Amino acid sequence: MFSFSVVARSGAARAGLLATPHGRVETPAFMPVGTAGAVKAMTRAQIEEVGAQILLANTYHLMLRPGDELVAELGGLHGFTGWKGPFLTDSGGYQVFSLSALRRVDDDGVSFRSHLDGTAHRLTPERSIEIQQNLGADVAMAFDECPPAAATREEVAAATERTARWARRSREAHRRKDQWLFGIVQGGTHLDLRERSVADVTALDFPGHAIGGLAVGETKDDTWRVVDHVAPMLPEEKPRYLMGVGTPEDLLDGVARGVDLFDCVLPTRNARNGQLFTSAGRLSIRNARYRADPRPPDPACSCFTCRTATRAYLRHLHLANEMTAATLMTLHNLAYYLDTLRAVRQNTLLGRFEEFRAEVLGVLAASEAEEEGGASGP
Amino acid sequence: MFSFSVVARSGAARAGLLATPHGRVETPAFMPVGTAGAVKAMTRAQIEEVGAQILLANTYHLMLRPGDELVAELGGLHGFTGWKGPFLTDSGGYQVFSLSALRRVDDDGVSFRSHLDGTAHRLTPERSIEIQQNLGADVAMAFDECPPAAATREEVAAATERTARWARRSREAHRRKDQWLFGIVQGGTHLDLRERSVADVTALDFPGHAIGGLAVGETKDDTWRVVDHVAPMLPEEKPRYLMGVGTPEDLLDGVARGVDLFDCVLPTRNARNGQLFTSAGRLSIRNARYRADPRPPDPACSCFTCRTATRAYLRHLHLANEMTAATLMTLHNLAYYLDTLRAVRQNTLLGRFEEFRAEVLGVLAASEAEEEGGASGP
Repeated sequence: MFSFSVVARSGAARAGLLATPHGRVETPAFMPVGTAGAVKAMTRAQIEEVGAQILLANTYHLMLRPGDELVAELGGLHGFTGWKGPFLTDSGGYQVFSLSALRRVDDDGVSFRSHLDGTAHRLTPERSIEIQQNLGADVAMAFDECPPAAATREEVAAATERTARWARRSREAHRRKDQWLFGIVQGGTHLDLRERSVADVTALDFPGHAIGGLAVGETKDDTWRVVDHVAPMLPEEKPRYLMGVGTPEDLLDGVARGVDLFDCVLPTRNARNGQLFTSAGRLSIRNARYRADPRPPDPACSCFTCRTATRAYLRHLHLANEMTAATLMTLHNLAYYLDTLRAVRQNTLLGRFEEFRAEVLGVLAASEAEEEGGASGP
Repeated sequence: MFSFSVVARSGAARAGLLATPHGRVETPAFMPVGTAGAVKAMTRAQIEEVGAQILLANTYHLMLRPGDELVAELGGLHGFTGWKGPFLTDSGGYQVFSLSALRRVDDDGVSFRSHLDGTAHRLTPERSIEIQQNLGADVAMAFDECPPAAATREEVAAATERTARWARRSREAHRRKDQWLFGIVQGGTHLDLRERSVADVTALDFPGHAIGGLAVGETKDDTWRVVDHVAPMLPEEKPRYLMGVGTPEDLLDGVARGVDLFDCVLPTRNARNGQLFTSAGRLSIRNARYRADPRPPDPACSCFTCRTATRAYLRHLHLANEMTAATLMTLHNLAYYLDTLRAVRQNTLLGRFEEFRAEVLGVLAASEAEEEGGASGP
């Protein structure tokens, strides 16, 4: 029912195939974030149209609303949302630590109050797995503690040890045969703690591994220093997922280090705020320079938005607070992310990933410099 | 380039064909409202998918933002929005009287302040026509004064006389040969003023006529008393447009009186507020009875939403304030309105409009009674 295989390598970059009960995912893959069971501002048809092959849904949000028992009653995430492809659910840990109020961690789990209505809840490894089994995603994540970048070494060390114990309990609690459970490596920016975490988590023989605890406020140098150290220690034959990352540049930099899976709210959240990711760099649609610009957001893109809408029209809709602006710009940003990873995969198959990466990063860096320099654009 | 013909009658109901430079409209037709150049929460593809044949855009909103000169520079509404079918623009009069602040009417026109930023603007018949020519819709409307239902007879009489003078000035100012200009009948609920208005406006030989000044707060009895009186006085061979109307029941009642065109924000606005129009009556998606309801919103409907989403899922997305809820419910409501009028037209062609109307109104009345009675639903 499940398998993962690396079909080609180009340097450390991998082109792979992940098979799940709900279909195949070509890796490297970006997972659009469907927080509450829908990718914000998108219909299922639009998600299919941009070519997403796997979606992420948030355990924390769904346990609070509408509740995991209701989702289970309606056929799990697939029955509930109608999305026929694979889902991955996170463990709930990250949101508990970033969103909830009055949280209190002990060795058994976390007590917290909902950010929605203040009601009291508790997550433990066993409860996180129960919820994720109710949600029924193809891939679930072990329950972990994700400390912020500002945490002390002692705090990170304690969280990392807890994450290892919780990984074991998650593994023991997990029953569904039609669901893979991935382990999560923590350890902050401390390489010795990361090494210890890798040893603890890989010992449990999960079918896949995530690098967690990054993109939480640390510097980019720290991010890549950790990934450089951790990725090669993870089993070569299993998928590697870099959680919460990132920008288009980050995807290329992650693939260059052997990462197979990514998720991030950037393409969807930034679209709602008027920022487009394009093959020529970032484009802030509010900018007055686009007032009468008849070009599509990205002339090199063939998505519905770029086929049908001008920058001038999108700018108008965005400034008029029309939801259609969020829809059209989300659709483009996701298409850009997914197209970029498709091109990454193709170039990896052709054995020229590094050349491709250098080309793309070169164009993006040049466009950023131009934007900062205040040029009026082409 | 333009034509209108009545191809069948069933009682007073008419099935017609309106030809425009941007395509054909089968009447009776409902025009979804694209206030600021987009139907709220819809993409152009979704509007095409529900089968809309003509859209309405608001002169008042577009003159303020992004400005009619910019729209003209980008190819008019068609070039600006990418919608390839016909557009109709209103005159701006209704919104000036309902939305703007500090308006002052004189015989020449209306001065007002924008509801967006308080800037001062002025609309006259000549300026309204200039704007509408810049917007470039297939059908423009003569500039009128639309008094509220609470206006005194003297106020309505003055507004009606002004509307007649402004209709003549609109006609004289109008130049575009690729745009039809319709006249508007006012007169409130006073049948003698309505008669006078019909005489004044029809004397100008417009290619089509609108019944304005209704759905502004008067009783339903008054609405239909006026339409009963006015519609038969309008030229038989020209299209009749009942502005701002209405509910699904209103569409049937309007067609029964010989109306060909409708527009209303109800299907789109109510969708955003969680109210669905269905073949079994209104459905408020927030209702707890739909918490675990696996049925589509309207089992008799074949729209994308009804093919892919359950009531439970829509309820969840609506309560979670997900934009996708607005999109999916807008799509259904528009599909329901458009499907209803397609069925009306078909039954008119078959000479059984009254039977069809009685059937639909019977089902809707029964479902409303059940809803009011607090039944828990099927």
